[in-house]
Amino acid sequence: MSGEPKWAGWGEPGKRTPLGDGALALLRSELGEGVPATPVELAEVRMPEPQPLPEAIAAAVGDESVLTGHEQRVRRSAGRSYPDLVRLRGGALERAPDAVVVPADAAQVARVLEVCAAGGVAVVPFGGGTSVVGGVDPLAGPHGRVIALDLRRMRSVAVDPISQTATLGPGLRGPEAEWALGERGFTAGHFPQSFECATVGGFAATRSAGQASAGYGRFDEIVTAVELVTPSGTMRTLATPHTAAGPALRELVVGSEGTLGVITEVTVRVRPAPAERRYEAWVALDFAAGRELIRSLAQADALPDVTRLSDEAETRVSLGLSGADGARRAALDAYLKLRRRSGGCLVICGWEGESEAVDRRRAVSLRHLRRGGAVPLGGAAGRAWERGRFDGPYLRDELMDLGYFVETLETSHEWSRLDDTYRAVGGALDRALRDQGTPGIVLCHLSHPYRDGASLYFTFVSRARSGDELEQWHAVKSAACEAIVAAGATITHHHAVGTDHAPYMEAEVGGLGVEALRAIKARLDPAGIMNPGKLLPG
Amino acid sequence: MSGEPKWAGWGEPGKRTPLGDGALALLRSELGEGVPATPVELAEVRMPEPQPLPEAIAAAVGDESVLTGHEQRVRRSAGRSYPDLVRLRGGALERAPDAVVVPADAAQVARVLEVCAAGGVAVVPFGGGTSVVGGVDPLAGPHGRVIALDLRRMRSVAVDPISQTATLGPGLRGPEAEWALGERGFTAGHFPQSFECATVGGFAATRSAGQASAGYGRFDEIVTAVELVTPSGTMRTLATPHTAAGPALRELVVGSEGTLGVITEVTVRVRPAPAERRYEAWVALDFAAGRELIRSLAQADALPDVTRLSDEAETRVSLGLSGADGARRAALDAYLKLRRRSGGCLVICGWEGESEAVDRRRAVSLRHLRRGGAVPLGGAAGRAWERGRFDGPYLRDELMDLGYFVETLETSHEWSRLDDTYRAVGGALDRALRDQGTPGIVLCHLSHPYRDGASLYFTFVSRARSGDELEQWHAVKSAACEAIVAAGATITHHHAVGTDHAPYMEAEVGGLGVEALRAIKARLDPAGIMNPGKLLPG
Repeated sequence: MSGEPKWAGWGEPGKRTPLGDGALALLRSELGEGVPATPVELAEVRMPEPQPLPEAIAAAVGDESVLTGHEQRVRRSAGRSYPDLVRLRGGALERAPDAVVVPADAAQVARVLEVCAAGGVAVVPFGGGTSVVGGVDPLAGPHGRVIALDLRRMRSVAVDPISQTATLGPGLRGPEAEWALGERGFTAGHFPQSFECATVGGFAATRSAGQASAGYGRFDEIVTAVELVTPSGTMRTLATPHTAAGPALRELVVGSEGTLGVITEVTVRVRPAPAERRYEAWVALDFAAGRELIRSLAQADALPDVTRLSDEAETRVSLGLSGADGARRAALDAYLKLRRRSGGCLVICGWEGESEAVDRRRAVSLRHLRRGGAVPLGGAAGRAWERGRFDGPYLRDELMDLGYFVETLETSHEWSRLDDTYRAVGGALDRALRDQGTPGIVLCHLSHPYRDGASLYFTFVSRARSGDELEQWHAVKSAACEAIVAAGATITHHHAVGTDHAPYMEAEVGGLGVEALRAIKARLDPAGIMNPGKLLPG
Repeated sequence: MSGEPKWAGWGEPGKRTPLGDGALALLRSELGEGVPATPVELAEVRMPEPQPLPEAIAAAVGDESVLTGHEQRVRRSAGRSYPDLVRLRGGALERAPDAVVVPADAAQVARVLEVCAAGGVAVVPFGGGTSVVGGVDPLAGPHGRVIALDLRRMRSVAVDPISQTATLGPGLRGPEAEWALGERGFTAGHFPQSFECATVGGFAATRSAGQASAGYGRFDEIVTAVELVTPSGTMRTLATPHTAAGPALRELVVGSEGTLGVITEVTVRVRPAPAERRYEAWVALDFAAGRELIRSLAQADALPDVTRLSDEAETRVSLGLSGADGARRAALDAYLKLRRRSGGCLVICGWEGESEAVDRRRAVSLRHLRRGGAVPLGGAAGRAWERGRFDGPYLRDELMDLGYFVETLETSHEWSRLDDTYRAVGGALDRALRDQGTPGIVLCHLSHPYRDGASLYFTFVSRARSGDELEQWHAVKSAACEAIVAAGATITHHHAVGTDHAPYMEAEVGGLGVEALRAIKARLDPAGIMNPGKLLPG
């Protein structure tokens, strides 16, 4: 994506993914008719007047790098969660940054933080603005004033081809970083659904996990070193492949969500760009059989680089929404019936790398897939998934236009607890949607498999309660979070904490864990200006 | 090992690894004759009288679990570094714990820490006592009194065979943990050289890395959850395969070296016990060629589970000391000459797992080995390495008896900086030994390879300066540490920090990094009783 993304939706302004007639019919028959809703125009958005800021901020970065225009403020007033979009589309913003400050380098970041700490101005580090958990909400905390610190000018790239590492600026968006690495023959292999818009700094700050994490590793696993500029100075970890020199400070910075400081540089392991990418689909007998199959792949070190298993509901809906025309769909149905997998679960597998390695690894994976009773659907269905892998958020815009409530959330747990977690969270979502008077469809897939467990990713859709969208969201989201906590699962596998999950952090890390995090923050950010209201419970 | 280890040496009391005539001749011709030195008898060891302790300690654990006998105190008065052994063998200890306290469970640990914090008693968590960096020195810090908290009673084992995880008590020694896992068909795959004596709690507290880390992962990579009892309460991280819920507190506990609290439980990923273990030796043209070969293995995901490359000096000495009799040695020499690798470098490769996977993975590795110009030495030399893999510290005792100074140290760096680091550290050691008037042999191997770099492990031997062993050690160790820091490498890849590396922590993590660590410690251990003098610079 070259220019600015949609201001109240997802991604490329020109790009849409309209639902086909079949998909629309499915939605209406299962959920009822939504109340269509159109976003206000950007110029109509109302928000509080900007507060004046210390002049030293402009002195630090230059006047031209302090933006206070209407559009600039609106664009940094929210992330891309469902509640964010509801608020943006409604056009009455409770909060917006008083200014957007765009530093050129780490030294300017340091100076801005110094000025803001002295002047009592909150700072929200801003990359792609794609948080789905309130991570970039322009909260001023106790300070009354807040800036968005937009890192888009910090986009350096330095590659060490011998060590296969790259040191990247935080403001690089996913495609831009991949393009720069690709020119030198490398890839970071990090492709989360937010890839088109999200940035390297955001990947590190939120412990992002890409769709190919089983092969390339999560972002936290490929980071070897970070530079963090805090109000108390700069911290830089050594770029060595490993160290046993005490607690891992790198792991304190990764996942810190802007609450400790600003990540100004990230060194990551890169790999040779794959000569081959082979994606294909399989069908497992049911979700339980698919889960056992993926566990066997994981525990035998035989995972494809992309491995995901849809449950029965997601399989049914994704085939329904996939835009497969009637004839192709009918052929697929016939094929599945022939193979006696009429209610089966879709498995997407993708291998990337040198052709010889792809062949070799695929052969090992296939033995497990076949032994687990899965049936091949072939490459076309796999490539269809690959083509649409970043489309989920575009589809959400379409659904919101049609008056539907659509949200995703995720967790992870050990294999022995995964089925209980699946049932508990799915059940809680189902009940909560009914309780809202808007019975929904709850879909789930298992992805990011590990030797000891996997992530569960839930998507749910129902009619929106027009005018009460935020209350509806809050009730359903809370029910899911409580079910996750009760199952002993994590409140987030890769969406991070932000504001939405902060109330569950004590359940996650315990009271003393929260206190340890507070102690670090108090040392690095004594004035409490860094991203207030995020990560730590209120 | 069933009973107590040697009190002033390494491991099994009955076990020795005497040097053969050839090895003795080599030592004498290259280093000169040492002044033989015999340790004092255990009963003759002098140390300060124990200070009286708060009675509440005995109330917390029971009278029978507070040990103040001569032998018990001597045995917890030092780790197993060269200076530790010099002091123990000399029999005049400056310090010893005032008592050895042996809690039964986490609740007793919590109660002991509470009492010690209130009463001003320092606490040194004590597992296998194998630290080679002063990690268990009985330092009282500002408190005047110190106990060794021996975790040997905390040896629980709970295995989840579905998730392939095991929750282990901190006091389990390596062989005991492996035996318990092996009975259930699993292995943790963690085999550091200290395996026979070191404990699970120590592995976690020091970020231990085993000889098969390329395959099974370092200990920090297999830990999924920890419980830490601190003077301010208990912290427990969730046992999920991953979480994005903020900074990784697990990574704060791992590597904390007893300075934040006591690790009372560790959950680790385990694997099916390998059906096959295949070890073999190869010879690379020289160290640079071997390094490039191992880099190619690492960057192609083709590493054997054990991968190590000796430099020319280590190759020569290890063949000289290996106890190979004259005839076998001569045959080996002839073979190497035939292959035109007369000065080559030894490569040890080991693959473990299901037979089919071992064959498949070995075939891929072999392609790289051959392409890199390495020549096979066969399985016998590989198995010889495997048989002697835990013998290094036994050999140290023999050398010390003969009046030699022997020490090891290690670091890691990126591939592009590894050769510079190798030359700088090796050169510094060589010069420092000469400056002491005791020119030595400096050996190195490359191990723990990663995609982005590897560890370098140095072993050096010279005559001991009889009576001035500690000054000699300090001068040489300091020279090496300064060279490491100047190269931008890490002060330790897996030996941890303890007292010996604490002065280099600021170079490692920066002033603000040290302050962040201090802030966490101040919150979890406000009285500063936990393992004073370790990890953080004075």
